[in-house]
Amino acid sequence: MKTYLDCIPCFFKQCLQVSRATKCSVILQKEILDEVSELIPGFSLNHTPPEMAGAILNIIREKTGQEDPYDDIKEISRNRVRNVLPKVEDMVKQSEAPLLTAVKLTIAANIIDYGANGELDLGSELISLLMVEDSKIKKEREELFNFNSFSNKLMNSHNILYIGDNVGEHFFDRILIEEMKRANPKISVTYATRDRPVLNDITLSDAIDAGIDKHAKAISSGSQLPGTVLNLCNKEFTDIFNSADMIISKGQGNYETLSDVSAPIFFLLMAKCPVIAEHACCDLKDILLIECQDSTLSQ
Amino acid sequence: MKTYLDCIPCFFKQCLQVSRATKCSVILQKEILDEVSELIPGFSLNHTPPEMAGAILNIIREKTGQEDPYDDIKEISRNRVRNVLPKVEDMVKQSEAPLLTAVKLTIAANIIDYGANGELDLGSELISLLMVEDSKIKKEREELFNFNSFSNKLMNSHNILYIGDNVGEHFFDRILIEEMKRANPKISVTYATRDRPVLNDITLSDAIDAGIDKHAKAISSGSQLPGTVLNLCNKEFTDIFNSADMIISKGQGNYETLSDVSAPIFFLLMAKCPVIAEHACCDLKDILLIECQDSTLSQ
Repeated sequence: MKTYLDCIPCFFKQCLQVSRATKCSVILQKEILDEVSELIPGFSLNHTPPEMAGAILNIIREKTGQEDPYDDIKEISRNRVRNVLPKVEDMVKQSEAPLLTAVKLTIAANIIDYGANGELDLGSELISLLMVEDSKIKKEREELFNFNSFSNKLMNSHNILYIGDNVGEHFFDRILIEEMKRANPKISVTYATRDRPVLNDITLSDAIDAGIDKHAKAISSGSQLPGTVLNLCNKEFTDIFNSADMIISKGQGNYETLSDVSAPIFFLLMAKCPVIAEHACCDLKDILLIECQDSTLSQ
Repeated sequence: MKTYLDCIPCFFKQCLQVSRATKCSVILQKEILDEVSELIPGFSLNHTPPEMAGAILNIIREKTGQEDPYDDIKEISRNRVRNVLPKVEDMVKQSEAPLLTAVKLTIAANIIDYGANGELDLGSELISLLMVEDSKIKKEREELFNFNSFSNKLMNSHNILYIGDNVGEHFFDRILIEEMKRANPKISVTYATRDRPVLNDITLSDAIDAGIDKHAKAISSGSQLPGTVLNLCNKEFTDIFNSADMIISKGQGNYETLSDVSAPIFFLLMAKCPVIAEHACCDLKDILLIECQDSTLSQ
């Protein structure tokens, strides 16, 4: 997905949010915004939004010396989700369609914005998410929530690549992977994370900490962006990407960077911004399970 | 009021909105955003936000050759408000406190965003505004809605300067001026507009078209910005400003540019953005009637 002009104000908003998370001075925050301004004229709209976001994060790291400004926020996320995990696991197990429930939950979990809502009661929030989620699924438009195709593909795959997104949400990824393996015990899953801390995205240590490595081979994709730009990923990842029977891409950043790639990808995301909603032809906050249009070509 | 860092993403958002209103190509819109980016490093936060907005509008005028991209939107605003004017006038006349009702209505009218809500039913919208407005007035905090001071000042003034804001809303200004003259027939009112089309702000021809000149002396302030920076206004306006017993400043742009000026100003506005709400120590969408803290000094 290319960058839309509407992404430009958003780059500055995100830049300011991250700068503030580093707790640097207002003067330094202005200097960071100034440097980002200087990048804009040279930034082509043919690049994906996470590429610009990556450049912005590099400026912030360089100016503040901070590698991981979202460290505290991620710790809060981890602890909160851990507290409700038994409840979530029960919900999935007691469901009549555990795979579908796990899919819905892991997409819905994408909306939980810990930074913006510090006092979130994740337990009741999750239950209400499950109650409202069906209204955010366009049942009449299978192309926006194509669970049938997802589960058919799962049943006919051997090698599955699962590309994670945010910290917190990744515990739900583990639950979904468990359900996928229950549905088709023959699959072998690789779970890919970012290579270094990028916003609140997961890294390899998060995946191991959440026990994902007990159910999947956990690797770093090599990505230093809040997304997956294939020619900036490492060889191990791209080899697995190119040979996978099925690829699960979580969240907006991965969608933005992989939506034009021809591969057997299923995008699981919530449309959290108007640009994504326009690109996917859906409403804001819709829960999406989109099969890559060209996925059948590469089979 | 100085510029906050949060204003910077907003500058880009507004720049994009206005560029789109000119209907210029996406390529030209990107060029405009690029030129605005180049301005940011040289823009001091000690300037007011409307000063930056003015510089952005100059870039847009220069690149597109369009003087008044909001012409159509303003025409829609005028026609809509004209259709409900008899109803509004009745509401004020039948009120037990017509001056207070006219004050509340003209501030509440500031929220009606014609550009964003093309299908607005202004009649019922106004009635609901009147119904909800009291909940948006912090009665326990007189400094945020100081109608007593406003009406005392009105009863003890001769020369009043009224600085208008948006098209559409200016019909409500006329109603308020009529009520002010009914309450104190001795007053002489000057009504000031922008010098040229700036966003959807009023110009002299709008004031005359709405019949404001029948109740007040209508003048251009000389301002070419969406606000009132005194040293960029004309001499006629600043002379009246400096000698006025009471000054009524409508809307956010005038508040942003006059809030640090020591003069007998009453700011009538709705806090439509988080930065203004923070500056005024109120909640978003609060209806504000704020007396300039230094207003008594200049009496």
